[in-house]
Amino acid sequence: MTFRFEVLHTSRKSRARVGRIHTPHGIIDTPNFVAVGTNGTLKALDNACVEEIGLQLMFCNTYHLLLQPGVEVVRRAGGLHRFINRRMPIITDSGGFQVFSLAYGSVADELKSRGSKKQDGQVLKISEEGVLFRSYRDGSKVLLTPETSIQAQKALGADIIIPFDELPPYHITPDALRASLDRTHRWEKRSLEEHLKNPQNQAMYAVIHGGVDLAMRQESVGILSQLPFDGFAIGGSLGKTKPEMVEMLSGVLPCLPLEKPNHLLGIGDLESLAQCVPLGVDTFDSSYPTRAARHGMLLTQEGRLKVEQGSHINHFGPIEPHCTCPTCKNFTLGYLHHLFKAKELTAYTLATIHNLHFMVDLMGQYRQAILEDLI
Amino acid sequence: MTFRFEVLHTSRKSRARVGRIHTPHGIIDTPNFVAVGTNGTLKALDNACVEEIGLQLMFCNTYHLLLQPGVEVVRRAGGLHRFINRRMPIITDSGGFQVFSLAYGSVADELKSRGSKKQDGQVLKISEEGVLFRSYRDGSKVLLTPETSIQAQKALGADIIIPFDELPPYHITPDALRASLDRTHRWEKRSLEEHLKNPQNQAMYAVIHGGVDLAMRQESVGILSQLPFDGFAIGGSLGKTKPEMVEMLSGVLPCLPLEKPNHLLGIGDLESLAQCVPLGVDTFDSSYPTRAARHGMLLTQEGRLKVEQGSHINHFGPIEPHCTCPTCKNFTLGYLHHLFKAKELTAYTLATIHNLHFMVDLMGQYRQAILEDLI
Repeated sequence: MTFRFEVLHTSRKSRARVGRIHTPHGIIDTPNFVAVGTNGTLKALDNACVEEIGLQLMFCNTYHLLLQPGVEVVRRAGGLHRFINRRMPIITDSGGFQVFSLAYGSVADELKSRGSKKQDGQVLKISEEGVLFRSYRDGSKVLLTPETSIQAQKALGADIIIPFDELPPYHITPDALRASLDRTHRWEKRSLEEHLKNPQNQAMYAVIHGGVDLAMRQESVGILSQLPFDGFAIGGSLGKTKPEMVEMLSGVLPCLPLEKPNHLLGIGDLESLAQCVPLGVDTFDSSYPTRAARHGMLLTQEGRLKVEQGSHINHFGPIEPHCTCPTCKNFTLGYLHHLFKAKELTAYTLATIHNLHFMVDLMGQYRQAILEDLI
Repeated sequence: MTFRFEVLHTSRKSRARVGRIHTPHGIIDTPNFVAVGTNGTLKALDNACVEEIGLQLMFCNTYHLLLQPGVEVVRRAGGLHRFINRRMPIITDSGGFQVFSLAYGSVADELKSRGSKKQDGQVLKISEEGVLFRSYRDGSKVLLTPETSIQAQKALGADIIIPFDELPPYHITPDALRASLDRTHRWEKRSLEEHLKNPQNQAMYAVIHGGVDLAMRQESVGILSQLPFDGFAIGGSLGKTKPEMVEMLSGVLPCLPLEKPNHLLGIGDLESLAQCVPLGVDTFDSSYPTRAARHGMLLTQEGRLKVEQGSHINHFGPIEPHCTCPTCKNFTLGYLHHLFKAKELTAYTLATIHNLHFMVDLMGQYRQAILEDLI
């Protein structure tokens, strides 16, 4: 089965659409949520459980897998699917995001003026060739280039892969943004060329850049959609507030080829989903629901629920009355409250199961609403 | 179903025996291993999974549940089985062990001369009535007496409960040991009386004390076996080495009534099991296999395996070739190695599943060997 995307229905009310991405490891119904399993596992959950919950696409980070256990290990194991025991689709990124976060700090760090991150000095050299950095695991020097990133992603063997891009900082001069965008396009082209030497049934999504400059974003779409990418990811800073992000996406998404799937990188909180599904975003990845779970924040139809809140101690029903997740079927909110208070690891697992199931359910509801032209 | 014990077979080669403890929540085949779920959960595992693995008896700590979430919460939830969603048997202790560990430190602390523990000062008063201590959770004063301990265990509703006893320190004068033993017997008698006011289908095991003095141990058996306890637990320090423990148990176990089940408190490492099953011990509780799992120590037929050992990185088969546990069926040792290196919570869960399954399997092998008079 090779990669293929079909649009089943576009809402009459918005740009929202229901589609289906066919991959070598099965179908991804869109719009959909993609959970982040950085090291080849969702935190506190095993992959057999993740498949049972029905998460159709899982995001793994090349940067982390490159450093631990190393891509050669994964190759010898028979690829990432076999290594982590996942039969359903996987997407990997290029490693660029993490490397540049080391260099510049995250956008959030910048906005909160946290200043330089403690990893400063780990990035040794950024050049046209790529980025030389120091492994946080063993101090060895690692060179990440468009070619080595794609070779790593070939060894991992995910269904969808991402070209190596430069992630510019949020605070940047127009000239520097221009230089970064041009270099990103050169790097993405080199990545695509490396990929096409040996496609291995993998699909590659281009990454649209241009920071908070709509004209540059549209230029990025124009350039990258000339190349035979299989889909489009939207990366980099889209603004410092949600309204700015929505405004930017409203300008970018209509420029993307309708017949190809798109992915919004690193954004998947509930508010953003509600605002971006109508704009026509097909997939979203975020660690929000799993991280929220570990912090005792449970997602429900009625809103967020803080499990450690005192009033839950005597709640002997499930988190949500009609929830069909394994946590709600087996355990009460009161018990979960107790496990969190007692700092039991089991608490993190049970909460993660619920939140992930909630996301799978929520995206099904979005698809149904689009099919009925309700959003 | 009320509590009942039957001996099915006693080995012709040793005092080892195969039996069956019938409880309101099902059967416990003996000899058996009892995993410790202090706060109402095994660490890193949910109770649905624990039942699937086939762990027939689970140990919960009254001391911890008393302080968090409080026994009234558990009572309102419908008892411990409903609160934690376990349909199979549960045993609770009296809380005495933890309270006296606060006062004296553990035997291990004493032997390693760790001196006073940081919780010193949490025990406010020890008197004939019981022990007054300060909650580590909210600083409130809690009075634990034979009566309040049993009332707490009534609210929890475990299948097997334990009378309130005094845990003397390992280093103790003969006079002090004598005084402690006499008081323990008075406390156990008061506990039994409190229990028999409202048996609730629970069984109560006496706790044999007497420290490292065999004559006192035998006296303890003599006194406690005159009372209508349903079984016998062996508590307190049995010596500072395994040979000392085995020698002491060799002297104590033959004095116990054969028709009642016995339990060795807090001991369940593999070496002790091998040495104590032939002595006729019926059940063992220990946090060893679950704690070992979280430290990356996997139990196998070939001995202990350190999962983070470098050579495992390229091992793409299960931990053990013929293991039928969910971890071995789904994941490789190499993947587990990676998860431990990456410090993923999932690692602790997968390792715990394997070790607990190993213990369930091992005890089945012991029972089979006894039935065949091999040990």
